Amino acid sequence: MYIGFSEAETFLRNCEDAVILTHQNPDGDCIGAGFALKDILEALGKRSRVVCSDEFPKRFDFLTDVGAGEYFEPKTVIAVDIADTKLMGKYREIYGSKVQLCIDHHISNKNYAEKTLLRSNAAAACEVIYELAEFMGVEITRHCAMCIYTGISTDSGCFRYSCTTPRTHEIAAELMKRFDINFARINRYMFEVKSINRIHLECAVTELMENYLGNRLTIIAVTQAMMNEMGVKQEELEGFAPLTIQLEDTEVGILMREREDGVFKCSFRSANDVNVSAICQTLGGGGHEKAAGCTVCGDIEEAKKQLIEAVERAL
Amino acid sequence: MYIGFSEAETFLRNCEDAVILTHQNPDGDCIGAGFALKDILEALGKRSRVVCSDEFPKRFDFLTDVGAGEYFEPKTVIAVDIADTKLMGKYREIYGSKVQLCIDHHISNKNYAEKTLLRSNAAAACEVIYELAEFMGVEITRHCAMCIYTGISTDSGCFRYSCTTPRTHEIAAELMKRFDINFARINRYMFEVKSINRIHLECAVTELMENYLGNRLTIIAVTQAMMNEMGVKQEELEGFAPLTIQLEDTEVGILMREREDGVFKCSFRSANDVNVSAICQTLGGGGHEKAAGCTVCGDIEEAKKQLIEAVERAL
Repeated sequence: MYIGFSEAETFLRNCEDAVILTHQNPDGDCIGAGFALKDILEALGKRSRVVCSDEFPKRFDFLTDVGAGEYFEPKTVIAVDIADTKLMGKYREIYGSKVQLCIDHHISNKNYAEKTLLRSNAAAACEVIYELAEFMGVEITRHCAMCIYTGISTDSGCFRYSCTTPRTHEIAAELMKRFDINFARINRYMFEVKSINRIHLECAVTELMENYLGNRLTIIAVTQAMMNEMGVKQEELEGFAPLTIQLEDTEVGILMREREDGVFKCSFRSANDVNVSAICQTLGGGGHEKAAGCTVCGDIEEAKKQLIEAVERAL
Repeated sequence: MYIGFSEAETFLRNCEDAVILTHQNPDGDCIGAGFALKDILEALGKRSRVVCSDEFPKRFDFLTDVGAGEYFEPKTVIAVDIADTKLMGKYREIYGSKVQLCIDHHISNKNYAEKTLLRSNAAAACEVIYELAEFMGVEITRHCAMCIYTGISTDSGCFRYSCTTPRTHEIAAELMKRFDINFARINRYMFEVKSINRIHLECAVTELMENYLGNRLTIIAVTQAMMNEMGVKQEELEGFAPLTIQLEDTEVGILMREREDGVFKCSFRSANDVNVSAICQTLGGGGHEKAAGCTVCGDIEEAKKQLIEAVERAL
């Protein structure tokens, strides 16, 4: 059931001992939203714990080093930034059918929770969390402000992507006015800092670029054999999808990573107006209009053929 | 003489036939400011012309294709985003000593004009132009809004850099509310789109990274011999300076380009808190705290030595 801010407020004010679920392959938005909500619940005198199927990456230490929360038997299950229980990883089995409140901004949200506060025009789940805190009149802390800024910045590509709205900028302005959040350093860590290995890997991956459909589709495909040769794991290729839409004529970019033998995790990006979420849905996946994903099976050439055909139908 | 908005308004309302100077190696901010000011003067019924020592790069066609203005004998000389007459290129001799109004945001502005409207806390000259239009109550057009957005976005690194203020975000929000400025496409062209040659060149240049002073200084040096070998011109290396501050420990990054035999154009970037404008001033250059430049002479090793010593003194 979809709910509004008022009902979400009632829920939060009445809940107890909440576990806050974030999605697997955690990014700035789900980590930001999870820890911001934890701060808000703390301000309300509630105990909560942020959980994730994967470890939080080191570059988010400045948000997560307050601690994810001590262990307790949860009485409340809240999900943030999770469109589908599939994205809960190992927590799906435990909590997938027990989510009481979901706070999200994905239009593709599967409405799996008892109550869902969905704002699909928000650039980030953190934007929804901010509006909720404002609505509730909760005094946020500097840490909470940094969580929210980080989520908004990462999910909007630092205000670059079309999901950015005037409100996104206004929230950034309000956070910056009220708190010294060192946004330049945050953005440096989110968008600029790379290890020397990562820099070399980026160059190697870039060299794999292939163009199809009159250059309107760019694919970068990395097989397990290539990963073995380069000495990298699949997770290390996280964040490379935007490399696929650097060329001027490209409308759709796909990063294919072979997860296991003949199973490719495909991350789609749209350069302009093509809705890649719709394309991914035809392949059993989903996501945002500009950034979506799916899994395809087969040998590398078969897998590419499926993707090329799906994109061709959409163009 | 430094002036305020009121005196700048009086000047613009009373001027006639203005030539608007932009700096050499034009970027989004000087082009945006030049063409935005031209729009504003047009709204006031004034004739103006935007001039630049170099051609406007093709990616700014969406701003410049309205035309830079017909030829006329100027009665007024205005400079935008130009901190020093040295940056006027071939127009320095003609107009360098005749600038009546300079509108700028560089703290290093040399105060060379008769009247200077300087707002050193503005993220971009375009931010100053926006505030001036607001102050004057001039109705801006969609084209003018796109010019201003582009300038603000490019100079703030899309709201990433520390020069960004709450006001920078507020102006972006106001422009987006009032006009359909297609900011996602603008940002794509400003920050993402590259030619395939550029992509390969970026990888090649990245491989030249050298680290000094316990990794706190990174230098990428490109000699004329290297450019010949790679088949590129000095101008094609424009925009690569940020590559020098990608590594976590780097505080100062320098891109050195050999302009002519033994003369190196050096572009400095600061990753965090080091003021590179101050370092460049010790070497006869200048700029912003986070992005500055200078020229050093000598063979490549001598030139590097000068830079390393200057940075070491500052760290």
